[in-house]
Amino acid sequence: MSQKKIITVIGPGESATASDIKDAETAGSLLADLGFIVLTGGRPFGVMEAALKGARGSGGETIAVLPGKDKTEASEYADIIIPTGMGQARNVINILSADLVIAIGLGAGTLSEIALAAKENKPLFIHGAHESTRSLINKLGHKQVEYGASIAELAEYLRNFK
Amino acid sequence: MSQKKIITVIGPGESATASDIKDAETAGSLLADLGFIVLTGGRPFGVMEAALKGARGSGGETIAVLPGKDKTEASEYADIIIPTGMGQARNVINILSADLVIAIGLGAGTLSEIALAAKENKPLFIHGAHESTRSLINKLGHKQVEYGASIAELAEYLRNFK
Amino acid sequence: MSQKKIITVIGPGESATASDIKDAETAGSLLADLGFIVLTGGRPFGVMEAALKGARGSGGETIAVLPGKDKTEASEYADIIIPTGMGQARNVINILSADLVIAIGLGAGTLSEIALAAKENKPLFIHGAHESTRSLINKLGHKQVEYGASIAELAEYLRNFK
Amino acid sequence: MSQKKIITVIGPGESATASDIKDAETAGSLLADLGFIVLTGGRPFGVMEAALKGARGSGGETIAVLPGKDKTEASEYADIIIPTGMGQARNVINILSADLVIAIGLGAGTLSEIALAAKENKPLFIHGAHESTRSLINKLGHKQVEYGASIAELAEYLRNFK
Repeated sequence: MSQKKIITVIGPGESATASDIKDAETAGSLLADLGFIVLTGGRPFGVMEAALKGARGSGGETIAVLPGKDKTEASEYADIIIPTGMGQARNVINILSADLVIAIGLGAGTLSEIALAAKENKPLFIHGAHESTRSLINKLGHKQVEYGASIAELAEYLRNFK
Repeated sequence: MSQKKIITVIGPGESATASDIKDAETAGSLLADLGFIVLTGGRPFGVMEAALKGARGSGGETIAVLPGKDKTEASEYADIIIPTGMGQARNVINILSADLVIAIGLGAGTLSEIALAAKENKPLFIHGAHESTRSLINKLGHKQVEYGASIAELAEYLRNFK
Repeated sequence: MSQKKIITVIGPGESATASDIKDAETAGSLLADLGFIVLTGGRPFGVMEAALKGARGSGGETIAVLPGKDKTEASEYADIIIPTGMGQARNVINILSADLVIAIGLGAGTLSEIALAAKENKPLFIHGAHESTRSLINKLGHKQVEYGASIAELAEYLRNFK
Repeated sequence: MSQKKIITVIGPGESATASDIKDAETAGSLLADLGFIVLTGGRPFGVMEAALKGARGSGGETIAVLPGKDKTEASEYADIIIPTGMGQARNVINILSADLVIAIGLGAGTLSEIALAAKENKPLFIHGAHESTRSLINKLGHKQVEYGASIAELAEYLRNFK
């Protein structure tokens, strides 16, 4: 049995902040160092690309699950490209493929994926969560959620993630 | 051209409160009175069923978009049953089919659909929203959202919805 | 219980022959006369549109299940428009929604839907089947398949379809 | 740029013949030797599992794209498990992810995937095709299709596949 652990990193695309991008790249690098595969929505911008870039830079393996049909739409930092042709429905696949979901930054797509992670009982780490996000997740009763304010806290969390 | 307007009602399933159920049934009835088709996730419980039941009771047409493959999994109040076999990915269809999305109550699936409505720029009416939901939607920058505290406010909103 | 029977008509889009179009329109009209809802892939050309047009002309109700996200991509003969944003994956929904599948003409998409109908054990009527189609379907062991060479034979078949 | 080439192997599941299984395992081994990633529908039986097993045995990387939501439903020979929760709609992903599709044996699901490969203009190699399959594919006008009667012919074809 050599099933590899997949960690899905979610976050805004074109509306990502410089801080989101920097944190996503650092997180991707960290995940690769720990031997995890990094999976994202795979487009060539935002948190999706930054996490793949960070993982690639640390020699990790990367997966892009694309909304469109064409492999050329993927980030150059993706090793394995899975085009779905299913638009936002591919978010479901991103979540179901995850052994852990890490959210960095907030967008509408990100929120839909956070909610799906709660729906599917997936372990979820939210980096830099707004108070309103915490409050909502709390109302949903999702048990396996952790929050962090820095990548150092993510690193600490991952040390205990088997 | 006789394209019919579809209003999608979203809300919790098995975790719906008695108040959610009552409001969803009233909303369904109201929507049918105004000539709209009511579409929901179609399962035989919760807000999904209550909205269909209300619409049926007022002589309206109803659509169930199911997560499973089998028509027998639908509420008895569904006229048109669309099984998808796609699980939560069917939420995307619920939102894309909507000329207006109405949320009543909160669950993880509901939140994922609210986020998708924001992502897809769909008009959205949130009944009885938590303060944290308002705050998050506000952060997402969705313009076409209205909030109501009673079904009377929904009725008022619909009077102006073309 | 007032669940309505849905008959899905499949066939080529832009590559449909004049004969496919004529037969699909006649079939749509016949289905509407018998009280069935006609569902197709919903785009404004080919068998998809012709079947909807025929049904509309006879006062029937019509459903378009679109590959794209936008209701404006639908045929003008669609009453109920279900955009999926899922490309060819929407073929699965076309088949699962059907109480009966009718194939008129042959294209790659049509063949994928015929195969799905066999996979999902859906009653299937193939109009004007090629010998090779019959041979393949036979190899698949699908029991609920009938063949016809004329719309009159389809009418005869439908007389016994409950 | 280190995008890896993915070859999708399709074929029957529980109805696979002993010969299908043997050929799929040999094909998987061959693909791994040539450095390709092998992707299948990922369930623990039939051509899906045999191709993964062959690839694993030769030290190749393997991907399972599952119809269900749960990673435990995958073959033990899968390295990367992508649960979709989308049933047969995952066939679309299998095809869109492929740089080449290889069909071994025939089932309803297989035929739907062959048709999708034609629809999406994917290079397609059909091993041991029935005459009726060739005839139908020919009618569909798919240009990038090759046929082979032995795994040796597949090996020859792959030598020229870049």
